[in-house]
Amino acid sequence: MRSQPNGPRPTLEAVAALAGVSRATASRVINGGAGVRPAVQERVHRAVAELGYVPNSAARSLVTRRTGAVAVIIAEPESRVFSDPFFGRQLRGISRALARADTQLLLMFVEGRADYDRIGRWLSAGHVDGALMFSLHRDDPLPALAERAGLPTVYGGRPDWAGAGRTPPPLYVDTDNRGGARQAVRHLLGRGRRRIAVITGPLDQASAVDRLDGYRDALGPAEPDPRLIADGGFTAHGGERAMAELLRAAPDLDAVFACSDLMANGALRTLRAHGRRVPDEVAVVGFDDLEPAAWADPPLTTVRQDVEEMGRLMAQLLLRLLDRQQADPAEGPDPAAPAPIITEARLVVREST
Amino acid sequence: MRSQPNGPRPTLEAVAALAGVSRATASRVINGGAGVRPAVQERVHRAVAELGYVPNSAARSLVTRRTGAVAVIIAEPESRVFSDPFFGRQLRGISRALARADTQLLLMFVEGRADYDRIGRWLSAGHVDGALMFSLHRDDPLPALAERAGLPTVYGGRPDWAGAGRTPPPLYVDTDNRGGARQAVRHLLGRGRRRIAVITGPLDQASAVDRLDGYRDALGPAEPDPRLIADGGFTAHGGERAMAELLRAAPDLDAVFACSDLMANGALRTLRAHGRRVPDEVAVVGFDDLEPAAWADPPLTTVRQDVEEMGRLMAQLLLRLLDRQQADPAEGPDPAAPAPIITEARLVVREST
Repeated sequence: MRSQPNGPRPTLEAVAALAGVSRATASRVINGGAGVRPAVQERVHRAVAELGYVPNSAARSLVTRRTGAVAVIIAEPESRVFSDPFFGRQLRGISRALARADTQLLLMFVEGRADYDRIGRWLSAGHVDGALMFSLHRDDPLPALAERAGLPTVYGGRPDWAGAGRTPPPLYVDTDNRGGARQAVRHLLGRGRRRIAVITGPLDQASAVDRLDGYRDALGPAEPDPRLIADGGFTAHGGERAMAELLRAAPDLDAVFACSDLMANGALRTLRAHGRRVPDEVAVVGFDDLEPAAWADPPLTTVRQDVEEMGRLMAQLLLRLLDRQQADPAEGPDPAAPAPIITEARLVVREST
Repeated sequence: MRSQPNGPRPTLEAVAALAGVSRATASRVINGGAGVRPAVQERVHRAVAELGYVPNSAARSLVTRRTGAVAVIIAEPESRVFSDPFFGRQLRGISRALARADTQLLLMFVEGRADYDRIGRWLSAGHVDGALMFSLHRDDPLPALAERAGLPTVYGGRPDWAGAGRTPPPLYVDTDNRGGARQAVRHLLGRGRRRIAVITGPLDQASAVDRLDGYRDALGPAEPDPRLIADGGFTAHGGERAMAELLRAAPDLDAVFACSDLMANGALRTLRAHGRRVPDEVAVVGFDDLEPAAWADPPLTTVRQDVEEMGRLMAQLLLRLLDRQQADPAEGPDPAAPAPIITEARLVVREST
């Protein structure tokens, strides 16, 4: 098994020398590469491969007092995390980026209010170097717990909690939810639809609010008909119920923008049960472009966000924060301070519109 | 949010007094209740509810030097964990039992060989009190890492690795895989099927081996036709491929026992693609009775194992191990030493046979 070559382990210094860069730059590339030019990153990766360099987190933690582990906290119960492919996909990006930096991922769920005390204590006790948090709700106590623990933290999704306006502002990775939603609804308008309903996520989450705002943007300055708006809670079952509500309140609707693929699938089931043909009578657009969009019948027009890439970017941002904490001043200033990242959202047209 | 009542927190002593039991018994019940009579458990739970007692892990960890956290390690990559409902269900049982004992769950995946070093170091560094490990393969280095770290560990599934025969034997929770498989195949024989194929899991896992042994048991002493055995790797895609192989090698087969529901679903897809009617021409039995059995078309006859309960039992066994480590000798000996637990597997007949 895990055989060790007999010679001495190649060092970071050797990697830096072979790549012709400073030790700090080599370290930055190995820890995610943010702020380093692609050509230089490429040189370092080639040197790593050539020497068979393995980052040694044990040695590193002696020098840096790091634990080599990062907590990933999803502010949802385990059952929801396992029933929504969004979370698995985001974790894939996180997990690969952390593994490349030889950093251990520790996944935590939040089953209920009673968990926050315990999570806060554990985070304060020095077991991890930093945290990634996502699916936060507006009144979520997690950001305050991380701050009290002095724990470098990167958020998934635009911060929208009390205190999100603090200085320095919290670091996060998000998709352009509002722009994506605008594209979805403009596409429906372009198809000649005039009574366009929306199934929203829970409006205590920023992503749900931003997508609803995009819907409003596309429809123009007039206040939308409230009978065309229903909350589907970001679940398939919620989408099913919300669609039934909408058909009762606005039987003349000719399109629906569901703010997640799971909810769109629920809506499709309800439309089928009510004998409404898709897209002839009702056109449907989702959001995410994950597995449920492919399973959908008919295949779903949706707004694609690169969820795995967002996970990767979150992990990289955090690794960079950790590096800055112990940057050697002799190496000069970090070329670019970490900043929030907004990734593109892009409409993918299939057969449901 | 998290409001604290103004009065003093109710103590474990108050709970014990109200329930009329010793402090040790009250603590044992709160940490899972193993070895305590149900009537006594009930008294303690009533006292907990009446007093609004919340186990205080911060205070506890000062006294006990515990961290209040337990690592749950699944020896599979994150992508497999999120595509197989077995893992989510087992985690549900674990997560509920740990939360009841105010113990933090930390979930870790194994993406590849390179992760073992890092996981071993982290486990040795005192960040957790114990570990639950499942989906181990025969050559898995995890048990040795846990032992080297001196970490109390409970396994999901019968241990089958080098060193599993050590004293004291490892603690584990498993289902009666062999007995369940026997029931499945006897049921097919009772339906008059004579050319019964089997789609196995990866045979470096004990559960896969045990289910294949149950298949052999039911068919009697003669060696089964090797053309009737194919490995489906416990995935839907693997079940699809294995079924195609079986149809090529043994076109006269009239039944198939797929050793997981996911693989049975894959097999159903292949049978449909080949125009074989289920159950008229080919009867199909699965194993697990999780969501895929309900989605199956036709609904799947399968062997039910209570996966959530198995998770709960694993967590309880570990909490009991941790309690024993610091038991107060004045309280007398633990009434029952922890031992492995085998839960029942039971055939559920639906329309695929």
